[in-house]
Amino acid sequence: MSLGESIFTLRAIRRFQPVSIPNRDLTDILEAAIRAPSGGNSQPWHFLLVQDLDLRKKLANLYHEAWWAKRKDSGIMGPEDIPSGKGPVQSAMRLADEIGQSPAIIVVCARSKGPDSMASVIPAVQNLLLAARGFGIGGTITTLHRQVEERVHELLNIPESFQIVYCIPLGYPAGNFGPVKRKSLVEVVSYDYWGNNLPNKD
Amino acid sequence: MSLGESIFTLRAIRRFQPVSIPNRDLTDILEAAIRAPSGGNSQPWHFLLVQDLDLRKKLANLYHEAWWAKRKDSGIMGPEDIPSGKGPVQSAMRLADEIGQSPAIIVVCARSKGPDSMASVIPAVQNLLLAARGFGIGGTITTLHRQVEERVHELLNIPESFQIVYCIPLGYPAGNFGPVKRKSLVEVVSYDYWGNNLPNKD
Repeated sequence: MSLGESIFTLRAIRRFQPVSIPNRDLTDILEAAIRAPSGGNSQPWHFLLVQDLDLRKKLANLYHEAWWAKRKDSGIMGPEDIPSGKGPVQSAMRLADEIGQSPAIIVVCARSKGPDSMASVIPAVQNLLLAARGFGIGGTITTLHRQVEERVHELLNIPESFQIVYCIPLGYPAGNFGPVKRKSLVEVVSYDYWGNNLPNKD
Repeated sequence: MSLGESIFTLRAIRRFQPVSIPNRDLTDILEAAIRAPSGGNSQPWHFLLVQDLDLRKKLANLYHEAWWAKRKDSGIMGPEDIPSGKGPVQSAMRLADEIGQSPAIIVVCARSKGPDSMASVIPAVQNLLLAARGFGIGGTITTLHRQVEERVHELLNIPESFQIVYCIPLGYPAGNFGPVKRKSLVEVVSYDYWGNNLPNKD
């Protein structure tokens, strides 16, 4: 696949076919992930690939609890507070119910706590998603919640010194890939000075 | 360019040919950047593309000060404390002298302070570097330092509420692209439980 096609058709995938991913493809995806840059080439990442059905179920239960804990933090107490329809919130709510059905969940960890270590693993996550896209495999970046953090560490035997950065379900999409909706460049790019949105002449 | 070639040959580029980058290519690179995912599709990024020679010089002076401020934070007081040779630290030290000579510097900002907003712009930065690679254009992720933060905000008219996440020089490399040195997968991947580095059988 071309670089352009992968970048421009990558979108969050939250529903998956019940089909497992070949290990050789997962390996290639992880090999792509670790090519990413990191601060001082520290490579502070660890990828925990959860495929065991029982573990996925237990992790999925904690994910569900975490998702609702985040909603409660922002005043949403239950499904009745979420408008019906087909928006991204409904889709994320369904993922909170169904994440255990994705054939693989990658728990991305960083070697120490704090934002610097977190920042240094995120480029690898983007490589991972792009490489997965190249195999027709989708996923989405999700976070957990401090309420379940300790239990996820225990469940997967993650060392206490590592932080969990993201939890990424992967699988073959039940829907379609991209394109995505984005603000236009004129809203998010300035030239030389903030607010000047006229490019310089060549 | 294929996705694989871009991912596997992307490396930090810190020396540039004195050749400007066509605006159409910069536009395509930024269009690729903003396709990245962000938390709740918040797209909290702003890209400030600095090409004006005088501004680049002023920004380069602040970058130089920031680079040495970071070294001092870790006990390195001057060039005499940095071992000679051809390692990444020497290369970074030289970039601190020469960053103003790169034809474009992209100052990547996030809409608010704090790690969540920072995290949400980093996938776009990786897209940016990969897309640049597709045009034969190199760069590297660098950070500033709180010591110069306020002056960079003033210089470029960046709103106070935005944080500066990264400062990315871009240009045609004076050296070569990848491959890169990385730890092997067996060191950074576990299967199901932390520390189990045997993949499941297909």
